Amino acid sequence: MQKYKKMSDISKIQLLFDDYLSQHFFKQEPRELYEPINYILQLGGKRLRPVLALMGYQIFDANIERALPVAFAVEIFHNFSLVHDDIMDEAPLRRGKPTVHHQYNINTGILSGDVMLIYAYEYLLKVDNADIHSELVKVFNRVAIEVCEGQQMDMNFERRQDVNISEYLKMIELKTAALIGGALELGALVAGASAQHASQLALFGRNAGIAFQLQDDLLDAFGDPEKVGKRLGGDIAQNKKTYLILKALELANAPIASELKQLMNAKPTDEASKIQAVKEILLSLNIPTEVEQAKDSFLQQAKTNLASIAGLDSSKQALLKLAEKLANRDF
Amino acid sequence: MQKYKKMSDISKIQLLFDDYLSQHFFKQEPRELYEPINYILQLGGKRLRPVLALMGYQIFDANIERALPVAFAVEIFHNFSLVHDDIMDEAPLRRGKPTVHHQYNINTGILSGDVMLIYAYEYLLKVDNADIHSELVKVFNRVAIEVCEGQQMDMNFERRQDVNISEYLKMIELKTAALIGGALELGALVAGASAQHASQLALFGRNAGIAFQLQDDLLDAFGDPEKVGKRLGGDIAQNKKTYLILKALELANAPIASELKQLMNAKPTDEASKIQAVKEILLSLNIPTEVEQAKDSFLQQAKTNLASIAGLDSSKQALLKLAEKLANRDF
Repeated sequence: MQKYKKMSDISKIQLLFDDYLSQHFFKQEPRELYEPINYILQLGGKRLRPVLALMGYQIFDANIERALPVAFAVEIFHNFSLVHDDIMDEAPLRRGKPTVHHQYNINTGILSGDVMLIYAYEYLLKVDNADIHSELVKVFNRVAIEVCEGQQMDMNFERRQDVNISEYLKMIELKTAALIGGALELGALVAGASAQHASQLALFGRNAGIAFQLQDDLLDAFGDPEKVGKRLGGDIAQNKKTYLILKALELANAPIASELKQLMNAKPTDEASKIQAVKEILLSLNIPTEVEQAKDSFLQQAKTNLASIAGLDSSKQALLKLAEKLANRDF
Repeated sequence: MQKYKKMSDISKIQLLFDDYLSQHFFKQEPRELYEPINYILQLGGKRLRPVLALMGYQIFDANIERALPVAFAVEIFHNFSLVHDDIMDEAPLRRGKPTVHHQYNINTGILSGDVMLIYAYEYLLKVDNADIHSELVKVFNRVAIEVCEGQQMDMNFERRQDVNISEYLKMIELKTAALIGGALELGALVAGASAQHASQLALFGRNAGIAFQLQDDLLDAFGDPEKVGKRLGGDIAQNKKTYLILKALELANAPIASELKQLMNAKPTDEASKIQAVKEILLSLNIPTEVEQAKDSFLQQAKTNLASIAGLDSSKQALLKLAEKLANRDF
């Protein structure tokens, strides 16, 4: 592990994690249970959450390999939630490949997901300081519960017509941002940070995570199709009440709001023109600018959280840069 | 809690647990996530696993209320596994009431189950001695992983024709007996038992748990319909390769074995006569006696395990009596 010492570059951290991951694939029996775990873990991605766990450690100490078990725990948990969410959302594809329940079957998706959740705890206990295991499990539990609650709220919103912006922000905080904050917090705790510093760092991650999700909402409607790498307007087509729609309903006058509501309840034969009509309303209300402002406000709060933490300045700078990249989906 | 001090009677222990349960129903939001947890927890049952956790404690110490959090953790975990297994098995009923995914829907079953698994860990951390939290989570993880592996083996067996008795015994050990042993082990650890004594107690529970499952197999074919409280012959109708069938295949001559295999692969129009034909073969091979002998052998091993533990004799006697009741499904 000496070769990774004193790294500051995010790509080196990704490499360190990928090394660890490749040494910890699941070889246990029965293979029908464990093979799907390796399948989803190998679908790749940027490893954002484990990178954050390692960066959370790095603010307080240089030996970041000590945080690899919590980084892996967080990545396993994240992938567990993807496997189960994809079943609930009936999603056929994940990162361009078949989802676990499509590649195998629904029962496999449920059971392999369950055992992943258990292994996340198993890796928390692999942290070399047993004195903090209880604290790590406590923090992890809180975050894991929040992620489930966020997923439930998201499902509830599909059937509700009266969701407001503050409820929506709460939902994305739980479903997405809590784990981004939790990854940083767990890393910090492994480094021996005080509970207070660790939870400030968690707040930083939450605020950055909300900005990250708002940008996701924005790009789904107004991104560059080549960069986003998926069909645009998917949220609109599925009548998802994202920040964009909720903000537009807040700002629009009665006739426009009514038109937007009607569009967002319809299952049109011509999807493309529905998306076009909704986007025109969003543009007429300057929604992209509104989203940019909201993002900036959460990023600003994140900066304040980070400033209150004593730690290595260079690592804090790296984290701030990462948060800005996240808010622009440039990571 | 003073009123429960020095209890030895199992029904008092059940009462103590039910008291705790009724004080710990889930009142959190969103209620769509938590209500199904209360629903399944209130379907009742004998509370075998929490009772065992409390009895495991009682062998080493009298203040059994200290083991209530692990007892609840074990009961939550057991119910989590029922909720997810019922989805996988497409079971409409559980204890005569609609299963969670029938009462609500499959997504609710998946997500409420997930959050139950997380809360099981939450309750392990409520044990008043934080020094053993890490050990409790470690033991719990091992057992929880075994239960998932057992469920996977059970599903694999449905598609296999070459299951042998030793594989079958391994499967029921993982799927059913591991948690029976784990409940006792966790209770003992909370009482401050040595790891060695606690794991001897776990072995006792495993062996008793295997006897318990063998009796379940036996009653499904040869029980008294009124006592069993469900349709007899269900395992045979579903072509389940239980101990009875596997033992019969081992003992039968070639023509009988071939007839039995044929019956156990068929989807007959007349289910009752299929069940009758299989039962006649089982009787002709003395399978009920074989099962009784296997049960006795596991119970005998359980007794040996228990004898090697230093602890309160009266509590060990109570536990032995319970194991015998379990092996006769008389609990």
